[in-house]
Amino acid sequence: MEQDSLIELRDLARAFAAERDWGQFHTPKNLAMALTVEAAELAEHFQWLPTGAAHELDERKRVGIRHELADVMLYLIQLADKTGVDLRSAVLEKMELNRAKYPAEKVRGDMRKYNEY
Amino acid sequence: MEQDSLIELRDLARAFAAERDWGQFHTPKNLAMALTVEAAELAEHFQWLPTGAAHELDERKRVGIRHELADVMLYLIQLADKTGVDLRSAVLEKMELNRAKYPAEKVRGDMRKYNEY
Amino acid sequence: MEQDSLIELRDLARAFAAERDWGQFHTPKNLAMALTVEAAELAEHFQWLPTGAAHELDERKRVGIRHELADVMLYLIQLADKTGVDLRSAVLEKMELNRAKYPAEKVRGDMRKYNEY
Amino acid sequence: MEQDSLIELRDLARAFAAERDWGQFHTPKNLAMALTVEAAELAEHFQWLPTGAAHELDERKRVGIRHELADVMLYLIQLADKTGVDLRSAVLEKMELNRAKYPAEKVRGDMRKYNEY
Repeated sequence: MEQDSLIELRDLARAFAAERDWGQFHTPKNLAMALTVEAAELAEHFQWLPTGAAHELDERKRVGIRHELADVMLYLIQLADKTGVDLRSAVLEKMELNRAKYPAEKVRGDMRKYNEY
Repeated sequence: MEQDSLIELRDLARAFAAERDWGQFHTPKNLAMALTVEAAELAEHFQWLPTGAAHELDERKRVGIRHELADVMLYLIQLADKTGVDLRSAVLEKMELNRAKYPAEKVRGDMRKYNEY
Repeated sequence: MEQDSLIELRDLARAFAAERDWGQFHTPKNLAMALTVEAAELAEHFQWLPTGAAHELDERKRVGIRHELADVMLYLIQLADKTGVDLRSAVLEKMELNRAKYPAEKVRGDMRKYNEY
Repeated sequence: MEQDSLIELRDLARAFAAERDWGQFHTPKNLAMALTVEAAELAEHFQWLPTGAAHELDERKRVGIRHELADVMLYLIQLADKTGVDLRSAVLEKMELNRAKYPAEKVRGDMRKYNEY
C-alpha cells in the first residue's frame, strides 16, 4: 500500500529542514508567522480580480497560485508537526463542530457567521 | 486500500459546501481571503509567546490551535480544488524548486532569503 | 496650533503601553505579527460580501469595521515608533516611488502590477 | 496653521487613485484584502529574526520596512476614507474601550487577552 500523502509530505518537509539545520528557526511562532505571509502572497494573486475564476487567470498567475498553495501547505504541515497535531484528525473533528454550528437546513445559501443568526 | 487523506478531506469539504449551497460564495478570491483570515487566527495564538513551544501552551490554547490548523487546511483544500491544483503534486514540485534555490550545503543554519546571498 | 494627529496618537499609544508595562512584549516582530492579525480581523468583515459598499453593511458590521481600523492603526503607529519611522515622511516618500512605478498615463484604469507590463 | 497629516495623506491618496482611474478597483473589500497583503509583506521582514530590534536590521531591511509601513498606511487611509471612518476619532474611541477592557492595575506586565482573565 502506498503511503498517505499527508505523512509523505510531512516526512519530506522534516528531511528538508533537517538537511539545512533550520529546526532552530522553526519554532511554532515563526512557522505561524511564515504561514500568514505565504497565505497573503497567495491572496495577492486574487486581490484585484473580480472572482479569480479560471478565465481571469493567465498562465503566469496559474503557476504562481500553484506555488503559493504549495508554500502554504508546507508551513501548515510543519506547524502541525511541531505542535503535535494530526491534520487529518483535526479536520475531521472540526468538520463535526462545523456541522453542529452550521446546520445545513438553517444556513443554506447564507454565509453569515453562526453567531449572527 | 484506504483512500488518501487529501482526497478524503477534499471530498468531505465538497459535500459540506454543497449541502449548504455555499458554492456561490466560494470563489477562489473569497476562499483566498478566508484562508488569510484563518491563518491570522492561528497566528494570534502565538503572537505574544516567546516561541510557542509546548510548555508555553495551556490546554485551551492547544485546542484553539488544533481547530485553527483545521480551518486553514479546509480553506486550503477548497481553494486548491477550485483552482484545479493537486496539492500533493504542487508540494512535490515546489520542494524541487526549493532544493535548487536553497542548496543544503549553502544555506545550512541560515534563514536569509535565497536572493540575499 | 493643535498637535498633529499622528503625533498625538503616537503619544497616547506610548502612554497606554507604558501604564501597562507592555513594552517588554512590544518588540517590532510581535507588533508586526499583531498588525497582520488585526488586518485579518478587519478583512473578515468583508470576506463574503460582494464589494463592502455601504449598503452591504449593517450597523453591527459598521461598528466592527471602525474598531478594527483603529486597531490596525494603533499597531501601525507603534511599530513605526519602535522602528524609528516617521509615518508621514515614509508615506510621502513611498508615493514618490509609486508615481515613478505607476505613471498615470500608462496605468490608467489598469491594476496589473508594474512589473507585469 | 498646517494641515493635519491624516487629512493631507488622505487627500494625496485620493488624488493618486483618481489620476489613475483606480476608484473602480478600490472597493472596501479589495482595499481590506490589499491591506492584509501589505501587512504580511511588512511582517515578512521580521519573521526569522529574534525580535526585530534595531541591531538585527541591516540598511536594506530598514528601507524595506519603511516602505511597507507606508504601504500599509496608504491602504488603511483609503479603506477608512471609503467606509467613512475618521481614523483619529476611531482610535480615540477604541482606546477608551481598551482602557475599560485592560485596566492598567489588572493587566500590568501581562498580555493575555482580556477574556482569559
